[in-house]
Amino acid sequence: MTVVALLGAGIFAKEEHLPAVEAAESLTLGAVYSRSKVSAEALAAAATHGPKPDVYYDSPATTGKSLTDLLARADIGAVIVCLPILVQPAVIRQALAAGKHVLSEKPIAKDVAAAKALIASHSKATLPLWAVAENFRFLEVIQYAAARVGQMGGEVTTFHMTMNTLIGDDDKFFNTEWRKVPGYQGGFLLDGGVHFIAGLRHLLGATAAKHDIAKVSAFTTLLQPKLAPVDTVQSILATDKGAIGTFCVSFGTEFKSAFEIEVVTTKGAVTLTPTAVTSTWVEAAGGNKKEDKKEFSFSSGVKPEVVAFGASLAKGAVDPRQSAEEALKDLAILEALLTSADQGGAPLAVE
Amino acid sequence: MTVVALLGAGIFAKEEHLPAVEAAESLTLGAVYSRSKVSAEALAAAATHGPKPDVYYDSPATTGKSLTDLLARADIGAVIVCLPILVQPAVIRQALAAGKHVLSEKPIAKDVAAAKALIASHSKATLPLWAVAENFRFLEVIQYAAARVGQMGGEVTTFHMTMNTLIGDDDKFFNTEWRKVPGYQGGFLLDGGVHFIAGLRHLLGATAAKHDIAKVSAFTTLLQPKLAPVDTVQSILATDKGAIGTFCVSFGTEFKSAFEIEVVTTKGAVTLTPTAVTSTWVEAAGGNKKEDKKEFSFSSGVKPEVVAFGASLAKGAVDPRQSAEEALKDLAILEALLTSADQGGAPLAVE
Repeated sequence: MTVVALLGAGIFAKEEHLPAVEAAESLTLGAVYSRSKVSAEALAAAATHGPKPDVYYDSPATTGKSLTDLLARADIGAVIVCLPILVQPAVIRQALAAGKHVLSEKPIAKDVAAAKALIASHSKATLPLWAVAENFRFLEVIQYAAARVGQMGGEVTTFHMTMNTLIGDDDKFFNTEWRKVPGYQGGFLLDGGVHFIAGLRHLLGATAAKHDIAKVSAFTTLLQPKLAPVDTVQSILATDKGAIGTFCVSFGTEFKSAFEIEVVTTKGAVTLTPTAVTSTWVEAAGGNKKEDKKEFSFSSGVKPEVVAFGASLAKGAVDPRQSAEEALKDLAILEALLTSADQGGAPLAVE
Repeated sequence: MTVVALLGAGIFAKEEHLPAVEAAESLTLGAVYSRSKVSAEALAAAATHGPKPDVYYDSPATTGKSLTDLLARADIGAVIVCLPILVQPAVIRQALAAGKHVLSEKPIAKDVAAAKALIASHSKATLPLWAVAENFRFLEVIQYAAARVGQMGGEVTTFHMTMNTLIGDDDKFFNTEWRKVPGYQGGFLLDGGVHFIAGLRHLLGATAAKHDIAKVSAFTTLLQPKLAPVDTVQSILATDKGAIGTFCVSFGTEFKSAFEIEVVTTKGAVTLTPTAVTSTWVEAAGGNKKEDKKEFSFSSGVKPEVVAFGASLAKGAVDPRQSAEEALKDLAILEALLTSADQGGAPLAVE
């Protein structure tokens, strides 16, 4: 059993991480930290399992209540970092330096340079472990779709990923200050976009040749002024094995199919939505087409993600779906899309 | 009543243009021409209305049977040119020079340079008329979808056009010699691709701001070696009013949704397939979403297209949907896609 602290007390910490930690048998919640005492106490009060976690905060400054005090506690073995994007790297470094295992929220950092610096500063050869959360890699619907892609076999012919939604003025995530006036590239596209890249990459990586995204060309636009700097990206991608497809995400578009990832091979196609996977395939060349559809309940994937983090601690090795390198690749692709668009659609290799 | 000659006796002439001319009340078929006597006679034999048309051909060379002889006939008022892409421009020039009105098949020419030379050589100020066929602009499903886009109003938020099919070894069009070893850019993508560009442009042009495609960035690939040089394009497009979307066509992909054009505005979305149009909209800001779907029989659009050509002759003016300028724009976009892909996905303005 590892005692874990939640660093960050925002919407996602309260709605997702708290219940996930409480549901994970190998973890117990020992402390919570937030910038403000009010937020930290609200999160602690929402805990329903066992003794209430201790609260730590910066404001008002109080002796023995700082993040440093929390990290100095010997009983805390790990932390889950769920703070604003710009705040995370310093907290991740501080926690690792204090010897705590870390699960930090995606994106790994605001840009590739910051992410690389963070990776370089952490030795993978020794403990503590550092894992980066990406709940899409733990969604049952994505796991199942990836398994079907793998079973199907064949060469990738094309693929697409499309997600369109309209962020309302009353959207709870939009109404967090750090998202309203984003101090990082892409705004919602950075924050939300890495999920969709991760989902697509997970399916492409399940193909026989294990494709990954290697090149992008993108146009972006701003449809809803409140979502500045940009809220929509339309792009074409090429994999390292030469397959080509599209990637389209908009947080400012209504009236369009919500979310779909499709990978097509010479043997069949797998298409997923948040609650269903449709597979079409032939078992032998010239054979009849078969199709099936499996339905899923909507889920965030955070519970299995936190369970996997708990299991990594027991094993002493990060789950491959939570490696910093995977998170860096998701971010690198997203950054390449934004940079390509800034350059008028110039094709860019993903480093 | 105009007496018309069919120049070309291939699959499309026989299956589409012949019945379309026979169905058009203002036209009557007076002659057919093909390179070979056998083909010309087969087409003439397939005519079922009134007296059999006279046949003209090059091979075997026979006095009084050449194309020049056909064009010298005073009773022939117009010709429909349905010949291989590379052969068409010379025949179009010859027919216009002989004073015949011309309806020539798409694409207008093999490339923009050839199309512009052809346009420059023809005076629009005087007769005869020159119209370029594009049956997609006459599809009932596209006409209806464009009307819905127009009624819906709003600013364009995004759009997409996707068509995927797998050309079989026994495909009748593939098995015409000039398509099997194409002497022009893009192969099937040129020949078939202009249709999908025309369809998308027709819908975009029906929006309040009358968007047209102004910039492209594309990747292409070859999935089926028999379809060289390329059979698949994935691209992003930007309109002259700044809307962005995707355009994806593959003649080498199975297992994927066949054909769909979608235009989304701030007021709603219109999505068409070959046999249905689905519209989603709200009548006032904040109102409930409404959706309806209208089904259509599959149709090629060639009959209304030929009827429109007949009507232009009566009026002395080309139908705007058949103007050489529209056909040039379709081709220019297709050429820009292929050129962008040749340059690794470089963004290109469409001239």
